[in-house]
Order: sequence, then C-alpha cells, then structure tokens
Amino acid sequence: MFEQLGLIGCGLMGGSFALALKRAGLVKRVVGYSKSPSTTERARQMGVIDIEAPSALLAVSGADIVLIAVPVSATEATFKAIKHLVTPSMLIMDVGSTKRDVIDAGRRGLREHIGSFVPAHPIAGKELSGVEHADPDLYAGKQIILTPIERTFTVQLQKAVDVWTALGCRVLKMSPEQHDAAFAAVSHLPHLIAFALMNGITSQPQGQDYLSLAGPGFRDFTRIAAGDPKIWRDIMISNREELLAQSKVFQRTLQAMELMISSGNGDALEGLIEQASNTRANWTMATKLNK
Amino acid sequence: MFEQLGLIGCGLMGGSFALALKRAGLVKRVVGYSKSPSTTERARQMGVIDIEAPSALLAVSGADIVLIAVPVSATEATFKAIKHLVTPSMLIMDVGSTKRDVIDAGRRGLREHIGSFVPAHPIAGKELSGVEHADPDLYAGKQIILTPIERTFTVQLQKAVDVWTALGCRVLKMSPEQHDAAFAAVSHLPHLIAFALMNGITSQPQGQDYLSLAGPGFRDFTRIAAGDPKIWRDIMISNREELLAQSKVFQRTLQAMELMISSGNGDALEGLIEQASNTRANWTMATKLNK
Repeated sequence: MFEQLGLIGCGLMGGSFALALKRAGLVKRVVGYSKSPSTTERARQMGVIDIEAPSALLAVSGADIVLIAVPVSATEATFKAIKHLVTPSMLIMDVGSTKRDVIDAGRRGLREHIGSFVPAHPIAGKELSGVEHADPDLYAGKQIILTPIERTFTVQLQKAVDVWTALGCRVLKMSPEQHDAAFAAVSHLPHLIAFALMNGITSQPQGQDYLSLAGPGFRDFTRIAAGDPKIWRDIMISNREELLAQSKVFQRTLQAMELMISSGNGDALEGLIEQASNTRANWTMATKLNK
Repeated sequence: MFEQLGLIGCGLMGGSFALALKRAGLVKRVVGYSKSPSTTERARQMGVIDIEAPSALLAVSGADIVLIAVPVSATEATFKAIKHLVTPSMLIMDVGSTKRDVIDAGRRGLREHIGSFVPAHPIAGKELSGVEHADPDLYAGKQIILTPIERTFTVQLQKAVDVWTALGCRVLKMSPEQHDAAFAAVSHLPHLIAFALMNGITSQPQGQDYLSLAGPGFRDFTRIAAGDPKIWRDIMISNREELLAQSKVFQRTLQAMELMISSGNGDALEGLIEQASNTRANWTMATKLNK
C-alpha cells in the first residue's frame, strides 16, 4: 500500500504504528527520526524502523506516508521542519489527544500543504511510554478519530481511513471542535481530577496513612493519575477552554450532591447515585467488536 | 474455634464470611437471617448457611460469633432486635464502610452489651452484590480495619483479630475517627466524584456521544460509579462531615490547577502533575503479601 513511512517520534505511539504497518505488509520501509539519537538507534535495533534519519526533514524525504508522534507542543516546529519536502501525494497524520491546536499548528507550519494533513487521534495507549513498549497490537480493535478540515484533500482522508481500517481499527470522523469537547469530558477532565485528588490527599498531614489504607476501587480510579506530566501539561493547556468548561459542569454537579449530603436528603441523593450507577452499568467501551 | 455463627444479612459480604469460616474449619454451623426470605433460602441451598432463622434475634440465639452484614442504616434496628440474646462471651462484628455512626448505633441499640461489639471494616468487595456472588476468597490477602472503643472487651477484640488473621487478612486497629477520615479521602470521595462526573456528562445534550468515545482510562476511572445506590447513599450521609471536608480539600486543589491552566502556567502545572504522577506510581495497594 505504501512505499515508505516517515516516522517522526519513535516512542510508544509511533513505534507501535510502524510495527503494525510492517506486520500487516502495508509498508516497504520505515525511516525514523527521534529528538534523542539513542531512541532512534534503539528503534532501529528493535526493528521498529529500518533506517535512522538525522532530521525530521530527512525522515520525510521520499515518504508517501508520514506519522508525527511527538508531544502536542512540538507539532508546529515539526511541521515547519518538514514543510519543504511535503508533496500533495503524501499522507501526513499525527496522533495527538487534542485537535484544534494541532490544526492551528498545521495552518501555521504547513501553510499551502495543509491539505495533505489528516489530523488523527487513536484512542489507545499505555501507562508505560517509550519505544521499548511499542506493540503491533496497540491499535487493534481501538477507535481512531479523524478530524479533517475543509482544505483536507479527500484522497488523503480516504487513505487515512483505509490504513487505520486495515490495522483493525474503528474509524470515526468528526469536527475538531466536537472532538475536543468530547475528550475534555471523558479524558482530560478525569485526568485533571485524578491528579487533583492525589495532590489533595498528600497535602494533608496524614495523607500517607490514608493512602496506605486504600483499596481496589482507589487503585482503578487513580490509575490515570500516573500519566506523563509533559504530555498532560500540553493537553490541558492546548484544550483549556473545553476542559475548564467541563470542569465547571462537573463542579456544579458535585456541589448539588454535596448539598443533598449536608442536608441529609437521602432520597434525592440516592436518585442521583442511581442515575450515575445505571449510566455506568449500561456503558461499554466501543471497540471494533461491538460496533 | 467457634460453635455457631449467627449471620444477619446473607449478601455478598456476609455470605463470603460464612463460606470462608466454614472452609477454614473455624465454625461448626451457620444460622442465617436475611430481610428477604428468598435470600435466606438461596443462601441455605448454596451451603452458605446451614439453618434459616426466621428473625435476626433467632439467628443470634446460641451463637458465639455474630456478623452483621446489612446496610449501615439498618444497623441500629438490628442491634435493637438482637439485644436481648447478646451475652458477654459473644463476639459481634459488622462490615460497614463507616465506623463512628455504627458505634453510635451500637451504643443506642446494644446499650450495656456494647463491649461485645468489635466494629470491623474489611477493605474488600465486588461490583456485584448478592449471595450468588459470595466467595470464600473475598477476604484473603485483604486489609481489615478494627475500630474498638474504650468499652470494647479485650477478649472479643483479640478473638476478632484472630478470626480475620486466620482467614488470611492483614488486621489493623485504629480509632473510629481516624478510620472515617481516611476512608472519606480514599474511598467515599472518589465514589462521590465518579457519580458526579457521570451525571455531569449525561446532563449535557451531547453526553451520550461523548460517552461513546471514551476509552480504557475512563473505563477504569468510572468503574466505582456503578456502586450500589442504597449502600453509597448511607455511607455518604453517615460520614458526611469527613466527606465534605475531603471534598473541600479536593476542590481547592482542583481550582489551583485550573488557575494554572487558564493562565497558561505550564511549568507550575507540570510540577503539580508530576507530584501526583510520582505519588501514584510509587503507591501500591497494601495486602498481606507486601506488608
């Protein structure tokens, strides 16, 4: 399907994409670049990439598909670095968790080449980052959100749909605005809450004692609090408007429940808990298998 | 070790205790009572109990160990119902998630017999309630908190320590106040937050669309939102002071992070996320194996 993947950022997300593409026979060779030369070397030793490129620009040279898998805040500089070798027949994608800011970076960084860029967000990941955790099965059965804009070339959009579908993903298309609002609600806010909960506990004199007593509910609830600080800092600041709006809705709901608790209004409280409990009990994660 | 267990409440928690005691050879027979006769009958058919009692009082008759495994709000009525057959040589325990209110219920309901009561909170559970999910391994390797008061008989406290230890549990003793503050922080508040998050999302016109996009982080974060409404209503109202105090600490921490996000103070935000992430990465759930 493709001759050459130019991979910029050979970490967990990028490395897993390269491995999946290779295993599916969808690419002949992978040319990779990472900011850290030792990561690029490691990726080659592991067979994630075939050739080490000394720059982002050279990773793109000769590629017909490019994946940018760098922290969101490095996206614009990456676009600027590769711009001179981007062609209309090239498919460029990212894997960022926010989309409006990545598209803005694309307009500024790629300019007249923006049509080749198909913004993508795979709903997949691991707590462990780095190329050593790259996994050809990371994306299989997962959802991929594509957020094309008016100037996106239809030919590249179709290629993006085809390549993720070939990797076993369920592909959804929506506007960047819809994407950012939805993920503020179901991903960015839960992370912010989990970070705040951990810090709220450890700010108390007996915080460590409290933590030593926590059980399996706490373990699952706070798993996402172990997320990567640089990545989450970027996501939260990039999507600040939607995130803060969702946090307001959450705090209003929390405060309404607090009022029922403080006034001892058990029936109203039970009604709200039941609503939440039923919603959660009836929810299942969308995957390829239950679409 | 014991002749007869009087089990009041033959659900998940009570049924699992009876099965564990039997398997360990620590009790000769189990006499059980549940509010619903069909539950009691089911428990007997499953071999969780040996004899069905028609009342809580008759379940206690002849018992040397009694476990009260009913919703927290039913504790006082249960104590009153059994009071006339409580003897100083009897060990009475509960399994409630809050302890000060259960002790208050004990003072009012058991009066001069309060010394036989050893308040207990096993840090164990399942999302699925009911005797059909009773499991002799539910408590193995888990923590049990005992919160004796001044009038607790030392002999019954020692028996409580011995029986849970014999079931493979790690037994901790603390004051009811310490217990309720700690579990407000690491259990009751996370549940309240999870309920509020779910309701905040579904209160929005596009809430269902948002939910359909949620991934594995959301799945784990909201698992506890499927909790039983009656049980959680009771816990939150019983422990309202500590819960609301913990919720204040949390909201202050959340709002401090929001301020960094809205002002674009990425370095300060990253510092706080890193603190939370390190705390969580270094935390492990206490079990018998890593004590």
